[in-house]
Parts: sequence; C-alpha cells; structure tokens
Amino acid sequence: MKFTCKKNILQESIYIAQKAVTGKTTMPILGGILIKAVNNQLILTGSDTDLSIITKIPVDVEEEGEIVVDAKIFGEIIRKLPNDLIEITTIDNNSIEILCQKSRFTLVCMNPDDFPPISNISENIIFSIPQKILKNMIKSTIFATSQEETRPILTGVLFEVKNSKLNMVALDGYRLALKSQNINTENTISAVIPGKTLNEVSKILEDKDENVNITFTSNHILFNFNNTKIISRLLEGDFIRYNSIIPEEYNLKVIAKREKMLECVERASLMGSDGNTSLVKLDIKDNSMVITSNSQLGMVREELNIILQGQSLEIAFNSKYIIDLLKIMEEEEVIMEFSSSVSPCVVKNKEIDNCTYLVLPVRLLK
Amino acid sequence: MKFTCKKNILQESIYIAQKAVTGKTTMPILGGILIKAVNNQLILTGSDTDLSIITKIPVDVEEEGEIVVDAKIFGEIIRKLPNDLIEITTIDNNSIEILCQKSRFTLVCMNPDDFPPISNISENIIFSIPQKILKNMIKSTIFATSQEETRPILTGVLFEVKNSKLNMVALDGYRLALKSQNINTENTISAVIPGKTLNEVSKILEDKDENVNITFTSNHILFNFNNTKIISRLLEGDFIRYNSIIPEEYNLKVIAKREKMLECVERASLMGSDGNTSLVKLDIKDNSMVITSNSQLGMVREELNIILQGQSLEIAFNSKYIIDLLKIMEEEEVIMEFSSSVSPCVVKNKEIDNCTYLVLPVRLLK
Repeated sequence: MKFTCKKNILQESIYIAQKAVTGKTTMPILGGILIKAVNNQLILTGSDTDLSIITKIPVDVEEEGEIVVDAKIFGEIIRKLPNDLIEITTIDNNSIEILCQKSRFTLVCMNPDDFPPISNISENIIFSIPQKILKNMIKSTIFATSQEETRPILTGVLFEVKNSKLNMVALDGYRLALKSQNINTENTISAVIPGKTLNEVSKILEDKDENVNITFTSNHILFNFNNTKIISRLLEGDFIRYNSIIPEEYNLKVIAKREKMLECVERASLMGSDGNTSLVKLDIKDNSMVITSNSQLGMVREELNIILQGQSLEIAFNSKYIIDLLKIMEEEEVIMEFSSSVSPCVVKNKEIDNCTYLVLPVRLLK
Repeated sequence: MKFTCKKNILQESIYIAQKAVTGKTTMPILGGILIKAVNNQLILTGSDTDLSIITKIPVDVEEEGEIVVDAKIFGEIIRKLPNDLIEITTIDNNSIEILCQKSRFTLVCMNPDDFPPISNISENIIFSIPQKILKNMIKSTIFATSQEETRPILTGVLFEVKNSKLNMVALDGYRLALKSQNINTENTISAVIPGKTLNEVSKILEDKDENVNITFTSNHILFNFNNTKIISRLLEGDFIRYNSIIPEEYNLKVIAKREKMLECVERASLMGSDGNTSLVKLDIKDNSMVITSNSQLGMVREELNIILQGQSLEIAFNSKYIIDLLKIMEEEEVIMEFSSSVSPCVVKNKEIDNCTYLVLPVRLLK
C-alpha cells in the first residue's frame, strides 16, 4: 500500500471514522481504524461491532492495499504533522511509514483480516432529510433518553415514519420529547436507534442543507451523507406507545418567555445541594408564576410575568427536567398546558407546532 | 448588616476571595467567605488558614455588620442573578436575605466568630513589582516545582532578593527554572512561597503595569494590589543552593527555533505510550538536530536545522521536560548549552538574558 494525501483531509476523515472506535476494549483490533487504499480513494472504517463508520476521501494511490492502525496514536500523529502532503507506505505486513516534510514515523499495524466484518446493507432509501434538520431533531430529543440500562429500549430514540412525516420520540419515564418533521416518502417504518449512535451521528452531521439518505433493514439503520456511511444496530423490542401518554386536554394554559423562565428556574434550583434533584414549586395565578424552592441551605422565591388562560394551580417539578427542556427549545415563548398538580405538563413552542415535551410533576406532601 | 452593591462588582470580589477557600474540608466554616460591611466598604475574606485573601469593594452600607456565607452557593447565586443592584440584609443571626429585581433568596449563614483569625501583618514593603511582570515570572517558574510531598520545600518557589534583583527559582530534582528581574530595593531576603499560593496569586494578578507591593515577615508573605491583600505562610526549611547546580561552562552551544523544536519534540513524544515519560534522543551535529524516539508502537525521526557551535553530541531527555520549558519560553530562538551526554543542559533565551532553565539528561544504555 502506498498513497499520498493532504494532512487536513486525512485528519478530518480520521476524526469521523474514530467516532465508532471505542476506547474501552480489551480487543486491540477494535481500537483500530481499517485503512484501505483502492481506486485513488482511501476508505477508513471504524467499528465497535454495534456501530460502524465508513468514510472515503480522494487520495493519490500508488499501490493498493489495506492495513489496520491504532486509531488514537494514528490520529495524534496526523494531527501533529505540518499542514502539508503526507505519504504513507506499508514497509512490511505489520508496519507503515508516514512521511511529511522532515518527519518520519514507523508505526506498528494490525492485520486487516482480524477487523470485524461490516454488515453489507443494500441501500434502499426510506427517506432523505437535510443534515441540519436531522442534527436539530437529534438535539431536541436525545436528552430525554434514559441513561439507565434497566429498560434498554428507553436508551434509544424512536424513528417513526408514517403519513409523510418523521416523528422522533425519546422518553425516560419522567419526561418525553417528541419532534416532528414533514418528509417526502410513502414508506412506513418504526425503529429505535441507540442514543449512543445518534450522539456520534450528530457530531458528524454539519449545519447544512445537503440531504442524509436513510435506509433501514430489519435490524440496522444506515445513514449516508458526505461520502460517509454510518451503520448501526437497532435496539430490539417494542417502544412505549407514546401517543397514549400525551394528554390532549388541559385546564390551564400558560404562555411564558422561555429565557426568563429558564433563568428563574436555574436560580431556584441552586437551593438543591445535590444539584440534580432540586424540587421547584410553581404557583400559577393572576398572570404570574411564582417559583419557590427551599432546603436546609435556605429559600428562594422568583416571580415571572406570564399570560394565563384558565384557573390557578400549584405544581412541583424536578428542576433538572424543566431546565433541560427550556435550554433545548429555541423559540422566544413557550406554551405550557396543565390539567392538575398530579398530571403531566405539556410544553410546546408558541409559533411552530413541531415539538411536544411532557414532564411529570412531583407530588407535593400537603 | 444591610448593604447595596452592583452585581458584577460583588461577583468579581467573590471570585477573588474564593481562591483561598478550599473545597475539600470537613470544617464548614473553611468553606465560607467572611463578609464585613463597614465604612461604606464590603470586606470579603477567604482562608484555608495557610492562605488568606482579603478584598475590598465600595458598597452602600445602610447598617454595618458581618456574617459568614458558604462561598460556593453564595458565589453561584450572585453569578446567576441579573446584572443589577443587589441588596443584602441579615434577617437574624444565622441568615441573610438577597434581593435583586424579582428574585429573593434567604440563605443560611455561619457565625463570624468561628472564622479563622487572619495574621495581622504590618505592611513594611520589601519591594514592588508590576503585576504583569510578577504574573509572568510565576508562569515561568512554577511548572518546575515538585508535585511530590517527599521534600516539601521543593513544592515552593524561592524568592531571592539581593543586589536590587529578584530571582525566582523552582526545581524538582530533574530540572530547574530561574527567572530574574531588576527591582528597586536595598533589601536582601530569601523565602520560599508555596506553589499553591503562587498559583492562586497568578490567577488574580492582571496583565497591567500597576505595582504589587510585597511584604515579608519571618513566616508570612503579603501581596497587596488592587484593593486585595493575599497573605500566605512561607515554606519552612532551606532551599537548595541552586547556583552550584547551574554549570557555567559548556562544550557545545545550539541555537534553535523554539516553536519548530517544540513541534518536533511533541511529535517524537507520541511514541511514548504512557505520554509523560517518553524518552527522546537528540543527535546534534553539522548544524542539524535529529530527534528520535522508539517504543513497541513504532519509531519516529525528526530533523531540525540549528546553529551549532562546538563538537557533536548524542543526548537523551524525558520529552515532558523539554516540552514544558519550550512551551513556557516566549522568544523566537533559544540557546541550549551542553557539556556531555550525562551533564545537565542549560536553556536560555537568545535575546533577553533573564531566564535560565536546566534539564537533566537520561543516561542511555549503550
């Protein structure tokens, strides 16, 4: 194998392939990137067997071949080299030489035959979606996935395609996030993608209008964009019927300035000494929301002007859940719909009807 | 106690006093800041008993008094409040009320009588030095202090004042850093300041020409600048006679481009799998420095153009020590003086003769 390519292009492609490489493995081959030089292309593959990323860049191939290099050290070497042409040559079956200006590295390699096989998926596109929209939909839902492995299905995000619409849904038993987008497809599908996969996908997606093509098989999803293919196993099992959880009716509706409310709840949450589980009480009446919290550290009282439609209500929440969703939302004003102090609260954007958040209240001891 | 002040001024003063507050203490009072409102001033004091910081800001005092608040939560509350006037009032002996716009906090406090007493130092200034120069001198030496407690004196930096000159010296048994500055004083003094103190002092010092006044007692140092006093215990014991360690003669002298050499050594150090202790070999001859390193991961060879005066030499170093000092130095070119492959290497700036670094080589097995 022998090829020449520009440092910054190689560095970027390693960055992408590396996203599927797990640092924590006892199998050295899974810490590696498979590099294949063929047809004046360099194909880099990283895989932890559940998630695989394959990315291609144009290079000058003088001699075809393939090899596996340790992702971390290879990435570090390329990153630290001057921004110039890099020449890489295999010098025997288990090492390569990396040349750039006056730098010369000899790096021990691994056998490509030991690299895990990548599922061969015939690309049968189910739908396409602009990169920046998918990136935003992942951000808007992934925070609500469960971090606990007790119910594995909840660590993923549901992709539900029907009636020319993509619904992405995550829920963890305390809250739910649903984001929707019209797409151009006749297909119907329902699959749950691991949160870890979507986390890596969103780091590789760019804020641009170019499409991502998405293909499903019975147990894999394939994202194809920018000369990069990302293949991930799906989570097995049925997702919760989320529609039945979202209440359709409400007794009172609040319109609040999102950033102001976020600041108030963040301050109120300071009274929780353990940060994550601070309880905040909302007292809603007369176009005002009074937010209070107290602990052995002291007390806090915040007051927010709102528009209230309906009767008054006292309700309490875990502050983290309210903060998370107010941070993720982007509009200036949010709508909150309440039924009672023990029923879930539904939060939506005021202007654009493309997301629904739901938070369970904490029952107050009277 | 009752006073009013601007949020950003209060926030800045908490940031300063907090630098002396240790997070890791079993005594809650040491996690606190003493707040004293008197004569239209607010005096904030933080102390871990070894290091104390006292800072003053002008405020509107309506009622004088003092109280101790938990530094972390008080700092967080002030930081999150809107940028407006804040009113703070004691509501009884063990709590204060914090008011800002529509936010109202009640915060539990501690008894000021329990706060550790601060050494009263009569200010008898030994020398004054511009803030930005002291900040730079700390940065240029502190990295060479020992991180091990086996010889406590080496965890500090020697301040040696004599012949109208301040020498700051740190050494850890493998390397030495000496930075000098002419100062206007007739005094002679020699004292060792804890590295931890200097670390906090350098965070508070600003990049400006205003002076820091420095006072010594037999076991304390006082830094006085910007309405802030920093009092620290000195380290006890005699510092190593550093002058006898620095060789005055050499057999060969190298002039090298600092950044180029730094990049070469950083790349060469990548071959050390455990990062910190990678061994790099320097082969110096014919106006060229060849830097090599190898491990079970592979090999690297770097070549650097230099100006060489004297004979050729092969010598090896722990890459971390070379990287640390080339990063700290600021000039374009450095001078390196060598005597033999087992003698310390002396590194200096080419243009300005105000620093001397020394690194011990690693003996190579032949």
